[in-house]
Amino acid sequence: MSTYVGPIPTAQDIQCLVDEDELRRFVVGCMASIGVELDHASQLAELLIEADLRGHYSHGLNRLHVYIEDVIGGINKEGKPKVVKSKGATAWVDGDNALGVVVGNFCTDLAIQLAKEHGIGWVVANNSNHYGICAHYAKRITNNGYVGMTFTNTSPCLFPSGSSQMGLGSNPICVAANGSGTAKQIAEEKDSFFLDMATSTVALGKIEVADRKGFTHIPSQWGANSNGQPTDNPKVVLQGGGLLPLGTSGNSSEISAGYKGTGLAMMVEMFCGLLGGAAYGKNIRKWRDEANQNANLGQCFVALDPECFAPEFADRLQTFIDETRTLEPVNAGEQVLVAGDPERQHIALCKMAGGIIYNHSIIDHLDNVATKCNIPPIKYSRMKE
Amino acid sequence: MSTYVGPIPTAQDIQCLVDEDELRRFVVGCMASIGVELDHASQLAELLIEADLRGHYSHGLNRLHVYIEDVIGGINKEGKPKVVKSKGATAWVDGDNALGVVVGNFCTDLAIQLAKEHGIGWVVANNSNHYGICAHYAKRITNNGYVGMTFTNTSPCLFPSGSSQMGLGSNPICVAANGSGTAKQIAEEKDSFFLDMATSTVALGKIEVADRKGFTHIPSQWGANSNGQPTDNPKVVLQGGGLLPLGTSGNSSEISAGYKGTGLAMMVEMFCGLLGGAAYGKNIRKWRDEANQNANLGQCFVALDPECFAPEFADRLQTFIDETRTLEPVNAGEQVLVAGDPERQHIALCKMAGGIIYNHSIIDHLDNVATKCNIPPIKYSRMKE
Repeated sequence: MSTYVGPIPTAQDIQCLVDEDELRRFVVGCMASIGVELDHASQLAELLIEADLRGHYSHGLNRLHVYIEDVIGGINKEGKPKVVKSKGATAWVDGDNALGVVVGNFCTDLAIQLAKEHGIGWVVANNSNHYGICAHYAKRITNNGYVGMTFTNTSPCLFPSGSSQMGLGSNPICVAANGSGTAKQIAEEKDSFFLDMATSTVALGKIEVADRKGFTHIPSQWGANSNGQPTDNPKVVLQGGGLLPLGTSGNSSEISAGYKGTGLAMMVEMFCGLLGGAAYGKNIRKWRDEANQNANLGQCFVALDPECFAPEFADRLQTFIDETRTLEPVNAGEQVLVAGDPERQHIALCKMAGGIIYNHSIIDHLDNVATKCNIPPIKYSRMKE
Repeated sequence: MSTYVGPIPTAQDIQCLVDEDELRRFVVGCMASIGVELDHASQLAELLIEADLRGHYSHGLNRLHVYIEDVIGGINKEGKPKVVKSKGATAWVDGDNALGVVVGNFCTDLAIQLAKEHGIGWVVANNSNHYGICAHYAKRITNNGYVGMTFTNTSPCLFPSGSSQMGLGSNPICVAANGSGTAKQIAEEKDSFFLDMATSTVALGKIEVADRKGFTHIPSQWGANSNGQPTDNPKVVLQGGGLLPLGTSGNSSEISAGYKGTGLAMMVEMFCGLLGGAAYGKNIRKWRDEANQNANLGQCFVALDPECFAPEFADRLQTFIDETRTLEPVNAGEQVLVAGDPERQHIALCKMAGGIIYNHSIIDHLDNVATKCNIPPIKYSRMKE
């Protein structure tokens, strides 16, 4: 019996190195083959590369074929998000059924503009599509010195506490800000607090990774069978089952407060589908099975200027981060981590290697995509093992 | 062996009924006896009564003596919160070391004012004190038709994942909004989504309740001994131990994502102590042991006008709430709950009884407070058993 509890995959199971420019060429080439214009395709490339760079392979080029399916299914290739309503620090955006990343970047830049003038910008979009990793948008905001937040609803895949039906998505929360110091792992980056989390115990991608690696058991807090009963079999979760809310233990929501994870997922839905007038809850289309239906996702983007409050926020944040990392650990030698630390380690690994590190199975997968799109396969170098 | 996993206490273990006006008389009398002016004392009375009405007895009159200690310890009885900085939709407030509820009400009203003009108001205070239940402030905001949010840091009582030191507070998150319907349980109230949760698995008060009821075991996800090792003994948690982050299972943060609870607690600290320039993290005073030190807590209050986004938000929220409640349950006959439902049930119970229902042990406790403050004891009627 092998139970997978590992975090983001590390260098152990990866062998190919790909230059970032080659990845750009590849994504843009695939999207061009189905008629997506250069600007939109380039935005998607940056999004997927960033996911892989951060070690979130489940959200990177591994998913390129799903975006291709979505475009073929009816995403508006010339979609132009527009502001429908704006008052003070807020704006409501119609995403025009464009690629999620196009909607996301538009809203993010708008939130930053609003924050410049009003101290905060709170932007909500409807008519959007899957926008990839939240961190992409939050980072664009923190690069401007602001606190960045973003939320999205997703297709239903989560059993609310006590429910045998998937009534919610994995609805992530992302909140981030830069400290005043430099990241120890990456010389050219500011240190930061970078929370980017699904409100389920784990994201679906983590269960997919466990399954792909051949693990037959996962913690029973992660997922459930098609009736909402916890299971430790990743295949049961992936084939008709779904995720459990953060805080779930066994069948009781009381033991470890799974109702809080449910509450957080509903909060995200309120910020996204409900404020935005998008699809919401159990009524959102299934992602891959129903690619020819409009997703009409709701998304929320917030930029907050810390200079509006007590001076020297970034210094305090840095001290807080440093104090947290240097708390006495429970297990000797294991440092207490701050949100964003695992991703920083992965970015440093790639920077040191001089490209993005992939498991060969992803390269094989991308070779298939290249054939379908009729473009040259991805060029990579084998890493020393 | 008896393991306590129960939610908010219900009618089973309560026998005394007290009129709300009598509770007001009592709180104001106690506070007057130590020189607190009527306006501040009345605000505290409303806060504590609301906690008890909602069934959160750990945060109600049961804690009156702690506020008395805090006032004697040095809270500014004439404290007047003031805006130090304001830009657009934001404001930074100096709480002037007034009672937490005075600071909280001031900031809440300011956030509502800002939201009227700018669509959102984001207010952060420093120099505040313990402000009781978050729901009090969020409700004041939802009563105006806005989405209400509030966050506070607290004295360190939580072991961040992997830490053997208490580096964070139980840092609650409260987010709420009204639907368009009427609460089924309470005729005069709007239905709502009302999330009010500590970012620890449970609040300390829940462990205090378990202990006071004589339970010798609690789920090991709730708390740890003084070295951060999970324990199922409530006394070990209460005597020098502390809380564990939401999502903790055993010693591994990976099994059920305790690092997410830690991240959420740090997020709250960022919104409160760090933005506010207040005390933060492990450096906040211990609450009751160090009552003569200024608490200098940081707190955050947000009002967001849903009318700035898609029309008919309240209708959509109501549909979403109703659809969630009517999801097919895992266990036949057990309805899926929405955040705020347990509190609504308790409020309905009290309304039906015609007063607030207390366990006799709280009345006994308040008799001691009355003696110390030299005011008449609380008048109550015995309930039929």
